[in-house]
Amino acid sequence: MHEKITHTESIYSGRVVKLVVHDVELPDGKSSKRELVQHPGAVAVVALDAEQNVLLVRQYRIAADQILLEIPAGTLNPGEDPEACAVRELQEETGYRPGQIEKIGGIFVAPGYTTEFIHLYLASDLIDSKLAQDEDEFLEVERLPLAEALKWVEQGDIIDGKSISALLLVARRLGM
Amino acid sequence: MHEKITHTESIYSGRVVKLVVHDVELPDGKSSKRELVQHPGAVAVVALDAEQNVLLVRQYRIAADQILLEIPAGTLNPGEDPEACAVRELQEETGYRPGQIEKIGGIFVAPGYTTEFIHLYLASDLIDSKLAQDEDEFLEVERLPLAEALKWVEQGDIIDGKSISALLLVARRLGM
Repeated sequence: MHEKITHTESIYSGRVVKLVVHDVELPDGKSSKRELVQHPGAVAVVALDAEQNVLLVRQYRIAADQILLEIPAGTLNPGEDPEACAVRELQEETGYRPGQIEKIGGIFVAPGYTTEFIHLYLASDLIDSKLAQDEDEFLEVERLPLAEALKWVEQGDIIDGKSISALLLVARRLGM
Repeated sequence: MHEKITHTESIYSGRVVKLVVHDVELPDGKSSKRELVQHPGAVAVVALDAEQNVLLVRQYRIAADQILLEIPAGTLNPGEDPEACAVRELQEETGYRPGQIEKIGGIFVAPGYTTEFIHLYLASDLIDSKLAQDEDEFLEVERLPLAEALKWVEQGDIIDGKSISALLLVARRLGM
Protein backbone atom coordinates (compact mmCIF):
# COMPACT_ATOMS: atom_id res chain seq x y z
CA MET A 1 0.00 0.00 0.00
CA HIS A 2 3.00 2.28 0.49
CA GLU A 3 3.53 5.34 -1.72
CA LYS A 4 7.06 6.32 -2.67
CA ILE A 5 7.92 10.03 -2.91
CA THR A 6 9.81 10.65 -6.16
CA HIS A 7 9.95 14.44 -6.05
CA THR A 8 8.92 17.22 -3.67
CA GLU A 9 8.10 20.80 -4.57
CA SER A 10 7.99 23.33 -1.73
CA ILE A 11 5.16 25.76 -2.40
CA TYR A 12 5.01 27.87 0.74
CA SER A 13 6.60 28.14 4.16
CA GLY A 14 4.59 30.25 6.57
CA ARG A 15 4.23 30.98 10.25
CA VAL A 16 2.35 27.80 11.11
CA VAL A 17 2.01 25.70 7.97
CA LYS A 18 4.19 24.71 5.06
CA LEU A 19 2.73 23.45 1.80
CA VAL A 20 4.52 20.89 -0.35
CA VAL A 21 3.46 18.89 -3.38
CA HIS A 22 4.89 15.39 -3.59
CA ASP A 23 5.08 13.36 -6.78
CA VAL A 24 4.47 9.80 -5.63
CA GLU A 25 4.73 6.34 -7.10
CA LEU A 26 1.59 4.38 -6.28
CA PRO A 27 1.54 0.67 -5.33
CA ASP A 28 0.64 -0.22 -8.95
CA GLY A 29 3.62 1.72 -10.32
CA LYS A 30 1.58 4.64 -11.65
CA SER A 31 2.30 8.16 -10.47
CA SER A 32 0.16 10.75 -8.73
CA LYS A 33 0.49 14.02 -6.82
CA ARG A 34 -0.14 14.58 -3.11
CA GLU A 35 -0.72 18.11 -1.81
CA LEU A 36 0.45 18.17 1.76
CA VAL A 37 0.33 20.67 4.61
CA GLN A 38 3.29 20.18 6.93
CA HIS A 39 2.30 21.15 10.45
CA PRO A 40 4.35 20.95 13.68
CA GLY A 41 1.58 19.15 15.59
CA ALA A 42 -0.55 20.34 18.47
CA VAL A 43 -2.13 19.54 21.82
CA ALA A 44 -5.66 19.83 23.18
CA VAL A 45 -6.84 19.52 26.76
CA VAL A 46 -10.05 18.49 28.49
CA ALA A 47 -9.68 20.37 31.80
CA LEU A 48 -12.01 19.30 34.61
CA ASP A 49 -12.42 21.07 37.93
CA ALA A 50 -13.35 19.41 41.23
CA GLU A 51 -17.09 19.76 40.43
CA GLN A 52 -16.66 18.02 37.03
CA ASN A 53 -17.05 21.25 35.12
CA VAL A 54 -15.06 21.51 31.91
CA LEU A 55 -13.26 24.62 30.65
CA LEU A 56 -14.08 25.57 27.06
CA VAL A 57 -12.87 28.50 24.97
CA ARG A 58 -15.03 30.47 22.64
CA GLN A 59 -13.23 32.18 19.77
CA TYR A 60 -13.78 33.45 16.27
CA ARG A 61 -12.26 31.12 13.69
CA ILE A 62 -11.73 32.70 10.33
CA ALA A 63 -11.55 29.30 8.57
CA ALA A 64 -15.01 28.43 9.89
CA ASP A 65 -16.19 32.05 9.61
CA GLN A 66 -17.91 31.70 12.97
CA ILE A 67 -17.34 31.65 16.69
CA LEU A 68 -16.56 28.10 17.83
CA LEU A 69 -16.58 26.51 21.24
CA GLU A 70 -13.47 24.33 21.67
CA ILE A 71 -11.35 22.74 24.33
CA PRO A 72 -8.11 24.65 25.04
CA ALA A 73 -5.47 23.79 22.45
CA GLY A 74 -2.37 25.03 20.74
CA THR A 75 0.51 24.33 18.41
CA LEU A 76 3.75 22.70 19.52
CA ASN A 77 6.81 24.92 19.59
CA PRO A 78 9.88 23.38 17.90
CA GLY A 79 11.15 20.55 20.07
CA GLU A 80 8.52 21.13 22.75
CA ASP A 81 7.32 18.19 24.82
CA PRO A 82 3.58 17.70 24.12
CA GLU A 83 2.64 17.46 27.81
CA ALA A 84 4.56 20.64 28.65
CA CYS A 85 2.81 22.31 25.71
CA ALA A 86 -0.58 21.15 27.02
CA VAL A 87 0.16 22.67 30.45
CA ARG A 88 1.34 25.93 28.84
CA GLU A 89 -1.61 26.25 26.48
CA LEU A 90 -4.14 25.49 29.22
CA GLN A 91 -2.56 28.15 31.39
CA GLU A 92 -2.35 30.73 28.58
CA GLU A 93 -5.92 30.21 27.45
CA THR A 94 -7.77 29.65 30.73
CA GLY A 95 -5.51 30.89 33.53
CA TYR A 96 -5.38 27.44 35.18
CA ARG A 97 -2.48 25.09 35.71
CA PRO A 98 -3.28 21.39 36.14
CA GLY A 99 -2.19 19.54 39.28
CA GLN A 100 -2.66 16.34 37.29
CA ILE A 101 -2.45 15.69 33.56
CA GLU A 102 -2.59 12.47 31.58
CA LYS A 103 -2.56 11.53 27.92
CA ILE A 104 -5.88 10.13 26.68
CA GLY A 105 -5.06 9.63 23.01
CA GLY A 106 -4.30 11.50 19.82
CA ILE A 107 -5.70 12.22 16.39
CA PHE A 108 -4.61 12.92 12.87
CA VAL A 109 -7.01 15.75 12.01
CA ALA A 110 -7.08 15.23 8.24
CA PRO A 111 -4.60 12.56 7.16
CA GLY A 112 -5.51 13.06 3.50
CA TYR A 113 -3.58 16.33 3.33
CA THR A 114 -2.06 17.49 6.62
CA THR A 115 0.62 15.99 8.82
CA GLU A 116 -0.94 17.56 11.93
CA PHE A 117 -1.30 15.18 14.88
CA ILE A 118 -2.99 16.46 18.04
CA HIS A 119 -2.03 14.94 21.39
CA LEU A 120 -5.09 14.80 23.65
CA TYR A 121 -4.89 15.26 27.44
CA LEU A 122 -7.13 15.13 30.47
CA ALA A 123 -6.20 17.75 33.08
CA SER A 124 -7.52 17.97 36.64
CA ASP A 125 -6.74 19.49 40.06
CA LEU A 126 -6.81 22.93 38.46
CA ILE A 127 -4.82 25.69 40.14
CA ASP A 128 -5.64 29.35 39.49
CA SER A 129 -2.58 30.80 37.78
CA LYS A 130 -2.96 33.58 35.21
CA LEU A 131 -0.51 33.93 32.32
CA ALA A 132 -0.41 36.38 29.44
CA GLN A 133 -2.40 35.27 26.39
CA ASP A 134 -0.99 35.13 22.87
CA GLU A 135 -1.08 38.59 21.31
CA ASP A 136 -3.34 37.65 18.41
CA GLU A 137 -5.74 35.39 20.33
CA PHE A 138 -9.07 36.76 21.49
CA LEU A 139 -11.04 34.25 23.42
CA GLU A 140 -13.55 33.85 26.21
CA VAL A 141 -13.39 31.03 28.71
CA GLU A 142 -16.57 29.18 29.56
CA ARG A 143 -16.94 26.77 32.47
CA LEU A 144 -19.84 24.33 32.31
CA PRO A 145 -20.75 20.87 33.61
CA LEU A 146 -19.14 18.11 31.54
CA ALA A 147 -22.58 16.47 31.19
CA GLU A 148 -23.85 19.69 29.59
CA ALA A 149 -20.86 19.86 27.23
CA LEU A 150 -21.60 16.27 26.14
CA LYS A 151 -25.18 17.33 25.34
CA TRP A 152 -23.79 20.18 23.24
CA VAL A 153 -21.64 17.65 21.36
CA GLU A 154 -24.68 15.45 20.69
CA GLN A 155 -26.83 18.40 19.61
CA GLY A 156 -24.22 19.83 17.25
CA ASP A 157 -23.47 22.94 19.32
CA ILE A 158 -19.84 21.84 19.55
CA ILE A 159 -18.55 21.11 16.03
CA ASP A 160 -14.80 21.23 16.47
CA GLY A 161 -13.34 17.81 15.69
CA LYS A 162 -10.60 17.61 18.34
CA SER A 163 -13.06 18.81 21.01
CA ILE A 164 -15.65 16.17 20.10
CA SER A 165 -13.04 13.38 20.03
CA ALA A 166 -11.49 14.40 23.35
CA LEU A 167 -14.75 15.08 25.22
CA LEU A 168 -16.25 11.76 24.12
CA LEU A 169 -13.07 9.87 25.01
CA VAL A 170 -13.21 11.39 28.51
CA ALA A 171 -16.93 10.56 28.78
CA ARG A 172 -16.19 6.89 28.08
CA ARG A 173 -13.41 6.83 30.70
CA LEU A 174 -15.77 8.29 33.29
CA GLY A 175 -18.66 6.03 32.27
CA MET A 176 -20.84 9.02 31.34
CA MET B 1 -14.20 38.78 18.38
CA HIS B 2 -14.59 39.01 14.59
CA GLU B 3 -11.55 39.39 12.34
CA LYS B 4 -11.81 41.52 9.21
CA ILE B 5 -9.97 40.41 6.07
CA THR B 6 -8.12 43.40 4.60
CA HIS B 7 -6.14 41.60 1.90
CA THR B 8 -5.89 38.09 0.48
CA GLU B 9 -2.92 36.58 -1.31
CA SER B 10 -3.50 33.37 -3.26
CA ILE B 11 -0.49 31.12 -2.83
CA TYR B 12 -1.53 27.86 -4.50
CA SER B 13 -4.50 26.27 -6.17
CA GLY B 14 -4.24 22.50 -6.43
CA ARG B 15 -6.33 19.43 -7.02
CA VAL B 16 -7.89 19.30 -3.56
CA VAL B 17 -6.64 22.26 -1.57
CA LYS B 18 -6.03 25.93 -2.16
CA LEU B 19 -3.76 27.97 0.08
CA VAL B 20 -4.37 31.66 0.77
CA VAL B 21 -2.85 34.10 3.22
CA HIS B 22 -5.24 36.70 4.63
CA ASP B 23 -4.14 39.96 6.22
CA VAL B 24 -6.68 40.50 8.98
CA GLU B 25 -7.63 43.29 11.34
CA LEU B 26 -7.97 41.92 14.86
CA PRO B 27 -10.66 42.98 17.35
CA ASP B 28 -8.20 45.41 18.98
CA GLY B 29 -7.40 47.08 15.65
CA LYS B 30 -3.97 45.49 15.23
CA SER B 31 -3.20 43.41 12.18
CA SER B 32 -2.09 39.81 11.74
CA LYS B 33 -1.78 37.14 9.06
CA ARG B 34 -3.88 33.98 8.75
CA GLU B 35 -2.63 31.11 6.60
CA LEU B 36 -5.65 29.24 5.36
CA VAL B 37 -6.28 26.04 3.44
CA GLN B 38 -9.46 26.31 1.42
CA HIS B 39 -11.04 22.89 1.10
CA PRO B 40 -14.35 21.92 -0.56
CA GLY B 41 -15.54 19.91 2.46
CA ALA B 42 -16.05 16.20 2.87
CA VAL B 43 -18.21 13.41 4.21
CA ALA B 44 -17.54 10.39 6.41
CA VAL B 45 -19.78 7.42 7.10
CA VAL B 46 -20.24 4.95 9.94
CA ALA B 47 -21.74 2.00 8.04
CA LEU B 48 -23.36 -0.71 10.15
CA ASP B 49 -24.59 -4.06 8.89
CA ALA B 50 -27.48 -6.06 10.37
CA GLU B 51 -25.14 -7.73 12.91
CA GLN B 52 -23.82 -4.35 14.12
CA ASN B 53 -20.52 -4.77 12.39
CA VAL B 54 -18.91 -1.59 11.12
CA LEU B 55 -17.06 -1.21 7.81
CA LEU B 56 -13.61 0.37 8.10
CA VAL B 57 -11.01 1.07 5.44
CA ARG B 58 -7.31 0.54 5.87
CA GLN B 59 -5.07 2.70 3.71
CA TYR B 60 -1.62 4.22 3.59
CA ARG B 61 -1.71 7.94 4.37
CA ILE B 62 1.36 9.79 3.25
CA ALA B 63 0.66 12.70 5.63
CA ALA B 64 0.70 10.30 8.58
CA ASP B 65 3.41 8.13 6.97
CA GLN B 66 1.54 5.03 8.11
CA ILE B 67 -1.42 2.82 7.34
CA LEU B 68 -4.51 4.14 9.11
CA LEU B 69 -7.84 2.54 9.86
CA GLU B 70 -10.66 4.99 9.08
CA ILE B 71 -14.35 5.08 8.38
CA PRO B 72 -15.19 5.47 4.66
CA ALA B 73 -14.92 9.12 3.62
CA GLY B 74 -14.34 11.41 0.70
CA THR B 75 -14.25 14.93 -0.63
CA LEU B 76 -17.33 16.72 -1.95
CA ASN B 77 -17.46 17.32 -5.68
CA PRO B 78 -18.38 20.91 -6.66
CA GLY B 79 -22.05 21.46 -5.85
CA GLU B 80 -22.54 17.90 -4.63
CA ASP B 81 -25.15 17.19 -1.95
CA PRO B 82 -23.32 15.84 1.13
CA GLU B 83 -25.71 12.90 1.60
CA ALA B 84 -25.37 11.88 -2.06
CA CYS B 85 -21.61 12.15 -1.64
CA ALA B 86 -21.75 9.92 1.46
CA VAL B 87 -23.67 7.26 -0.48
CA ARG B 88 -21.22 7.47 -3.40
CA GLU B 89 -18.09 7.32 -1.25
CA LEU B 90 -19.41 4.40 0.80
CA GLN B 91 -20.18 2.52 -2.39
CA GLU B 92 -16.82 3.35 -4.02
CA GLU B 93 -14.78 2.40 -0.99
CA THR B 94 -16.67 -0.61 0.38
CA GLY B 95 -18.97 -1.87 -2.38
CA TYR B 96 -22.09 -1.30 -0.27
CA ARG B 97 -25.01 1.06 -0.79
CA PRO B 98 -27.01 2.06 2.30
CA GLY B 99 -30.75 1.37 2.46
CA GLN B 100 -30.88 4.00 5.20
CA ILE B 101 -28.65 6.98 5.88
CA GLU B 102 -28.93 9.80 8.40
CA LYS B 103 -26.82 12.78 9.40
CA ILE B 104 -25.31 12.44 12.87
CA GLY B 105 -23.30 15.66 13.01
CA GLY B 106 -20.31 17.38 11.51
CA ILE B 107 -16.84 18.62 12.38
CA PHE B 108 -14.37 21.31 11.48
CA VAL B 109 -11.20 19.25 11.35
CA ALA B 110 -8.73 22.05 12.14
CA PRO B 111 -10.48 25.42 12.31
CA GLY B 112 -7.21 27.20 12.99
CA TYR B 113 -6.10 26.83 9.38
CA THR B 114 -8.47 24.85 7.15
CA THR B 115 -12.01 25.52 6.03
CA GLU B 116 -12.71 21.79 5.75
CA PHE B 117 -15.98 20.70 7.33
CA ILE B 118 -16.84 16.99 7.35
CA HIS B 119 -20.49 15.93 7.34
CA LEU B 120 -20.90 12.76 9.41
CA TYR B 121 -23.44 10.05 8.56
CA LEU B 122 -24.76 6.79 9.94
CA ALA B 123 -25.59 4.28 7.20
CA SER B 124 -27.45 1.00 7.65
CA ASP B 125 -29.41 -1.65 5.70
CA LEU B 126 -26.34 -2.21 3.55
CA ILE B 127 -26.87 -3.57 0.03
CA ASP B 128 -24.04 -5.31 -1.84
CA SER B 129 -23.32 -3.13 -4.86
CA LYS B 130 -19.77 -2.90 -6.24
CA LEU B 131 -18.55 0.28 -7.93
CA ALA B 132 -15.15 1.14 -9.42
CA GLN B 133 -12.72 2.67 -6.91
CA ASP B 134 -10.88 5.95 -7.47
CA GLU B 135 -7.81 5.30 -9.61
CA ASP B 136 -5.30 6.50 -7.05
CA GLU B 137 -6.89 4.92 -3.98
CA PHE B 138 -5.54 1.66 -2.62
CA LEU B 139 -7.50 0.42 0.33
CA GLU B 140 -8.66 -2.69 2.13
CA VAL B 141 -12.08 -2.97 3.69
CA GLU B 142 -12.35 -4.43 7.17
CA ARG B 143 -15.61 -5.50 8.79
CA LEU B 144 -15.62 -5.84 12.58
CA PRO B 145 -18.08 -5.60 15.47
CA LEU B 146 -18.79 -1.98 16.42
CA ALA B 147 -17.99 -2.87 20.05
CA GLU B 148 -14.53 -3.98 18.92
CA ALA B 149 -14.00 -0.79 16.90
CA LEU B 150 -14.87 1.24 20.01
CA LYS B 151 -12.21 -0.67 21.95
CA TRP B 152 -9.71 0.19 19.20
CA VAL B 153 -10.65 3.85 19.59
CA GLU B 154 -10.10 3.69 23.37
CA GLN B 155 -6.78 1.85 22.99
CA GLY B 156 -5.42 4.24 20.38
CA ASP B 157 -5.50 1.74 17.49
CA ILE B 158 -7.82 4.10 15.61
CA ILE B 159 -6.23 7.58 15.54
CA ASP B 160 -8.08 9.29 12.71
CA GLY B 161 -10.02 12.25 14.10
CA LYS B 162 -13.19 12.03 12.00
CA SER B 163 -13.41 8.28 12.66
CA ILE B 164 -13.11 8.73 16.43
CA SER B 165 -15.70 11.53 16.48
CA ALA B 166 -18.19 9.64 14.32
CA LEU B 167 -17.78 6.23 16.00
CA LEU B 168 -18.17 7.72 19.49
CA LEU B 169 -21.21 9.75 18.40
CA VAL B 170 -22.81 6.56 17.09
CA ALA B 171 -21.90 4.72 20.31
CA ARG B 172 -23.73 7.36 22.37
CA ARG B 173 -26.81 7.10 20.15
CA LEU B 174 -26.88 3.34 20.57
CA GLY B 175 -26.17 3.50 24.31
CA MET B 176 -22.94 1.51 23.91
